Amino acid sequence: MQQTEMIKLIQSHRSIRAFTEQKVTDAQIESIVESGRWAPSSNHVQAYSIIVIQSEERKKELAKLAGNQSYVEECPVFFVICADFYRLQRATAKHEQPFEVGAQEQVLVGAVDTALVAENMLLAARSYGMGGVMIGGIRNDPEAVSKLLGLPEFTFPVMGLCIGYPAQEPEQKPRLPKQAVVHYETYDASNYEETLAQYDEITARYYQERSEAKRVDTWSEQMSRFFATTKRPHIGDFLKKQGFLKS
Amino acid sequence: MQQTEMIKLIQSHRSIRAFTEQKVTDAQIESIVESGRWAPSSNHVQAYSIIVIQSEERKKELAKLAGNQSYVEECPVFFVICADFYRLQRATAKHEQPFEVGAQEQVLVGAVDTALVAENMLLAARSYGMGGVMIGGIRNDPEAVSKLLGLPEFTFPVMGLCIGYPAQEPEQKPRLPKQAVVHYETYDASNYEETLAQYDEITARYYQERSEAKRVDTWSEQMSRFFATTKRPHIGDFLKKQGFLKS
Repeated sequence: MQQTEMIKLIQSHRSIRAFTEQKVTDAQIESIVESGRWAPSSNHVQAYSIIVIQSEERKKELAKLAGNQSYVEECPVFFVICADFYRLQRATAKHEQPFEVGAQEQVLVGAVDTALVAENMLLAARSYGMGGVMIGGIRNDPEAVSKLLGLPEFTFPVMGLCIGYPAQEPEQKPRLPKQAVVHYETYDASNYEETLAQYDEITARYYQERSEAKRVDTWSEQMSRFFATTKRPHIGDFLKKQGFLKS
Repeated sequence: MQQTEMIKLIQSHRSIRAFTEQKVTDAQIESIVESGRWAPSSNHVQAYSIIVIQSEERKKELAKLAGNQSYVEECPVFFVICADFYRLQRATAKHEQPFEVGAQEQVLVGAVDTALVAENMLLAARSYGMGGVMIGGIRNDPEAVSKLLGLPEFTFPVMGLCIGYPAQEPEQKPRLPKQAVVHYETYDASNYEETLAQYDEITARYYQERSEAKRVDTWSEQMSRFFATTKRPHIGDFLKKQGFLKS
């Protein structure tokens, strides 16, 4: 199958965590956020906001809050992308209607809208030759992040996004084999035992052979360690505090 | 600012709901799902699955379940993209570890991973000259959808995606003005009253002047009607049934 330039760009994704001194211009930042704006949105709610952060002190603080991820501080521009129903509450109040965002559905819509925007932004930046990495660590302490950025009720930070010109060229991290993630007509797990074993071999080789941070590990071991404890158990309470999950 | 081809494609997004008879080839479908596989994923969990659906009966059934959206049936290929922790449960069981996915965090991770994959897929398809639309209506009756597709525990359908060659050329739907969605350093709602009023004028004009389904409406009226009632109140219970939100 002939690959378009778009598809080549999409399929050459790797996370970039080290950046050169090259500045990202204001015009480039505008073009990146403009690309975010054109993401699809369920029922046209557009339930997201983008915070553009270039202040050294603020990036430093966010790096700390995201679990000491130094590249949050080092990248020339950092974006915090939030689920945002606050504007919708304002729009609704204008017409004196009730505002019902208390169900799980709105949490899903906020997360989905935000992620669609973020992927557009990352791809737009990559098309300029930049690279970046998404930062889930922004949810480590969403309350402190919200305070730092002045986020109002009916919002929550979903992810960060570091953007800049790459100062590294990491190998691509092997993805789960296609037969483990793509199903035809109905879900088919019959190959999982074999496919996951194959993937463990592939990832073991990747972790041993990659140029940086070599280690002995496999994907299934990594996942079994990761899911052995509850991750970010505070998120539910935080969302309630922000006005969600009431019903 | 010079726009890359990628950025032009991203910023020319419009949802396509009518398709020509032109077939989407198997090789194109493979290339589209392969593009999905290269989306970023938090902690490399890759918590998604793609179901490729071309069976006429199955598309017909899904169109009905998604609220009688005829284009789900009419598009040549329909994808259901699911949050999927079932594979992760299998990987974890291999190492006899506990499997803790009971917090809100996993719902967010599943929704985000899925949306990143979906946006890659839509853009890959668009780069071939196809178009499409994402279908949140797949969450109208997630239990029936899961049954139809044989989805196991620890999964939930997040969205559908219709893909095919466009048989329509709709105007772009105006997005919220940039100053309403993009903030610098901290969240700034001081322009909202003015900006939302402007946007109401823009959307009123759009709804009156567009070529199909003209109506008298504004964005804020549309949103105030939409949020006046709780949307998809069943999602929370469904997620619990699938193994989420236990803690």
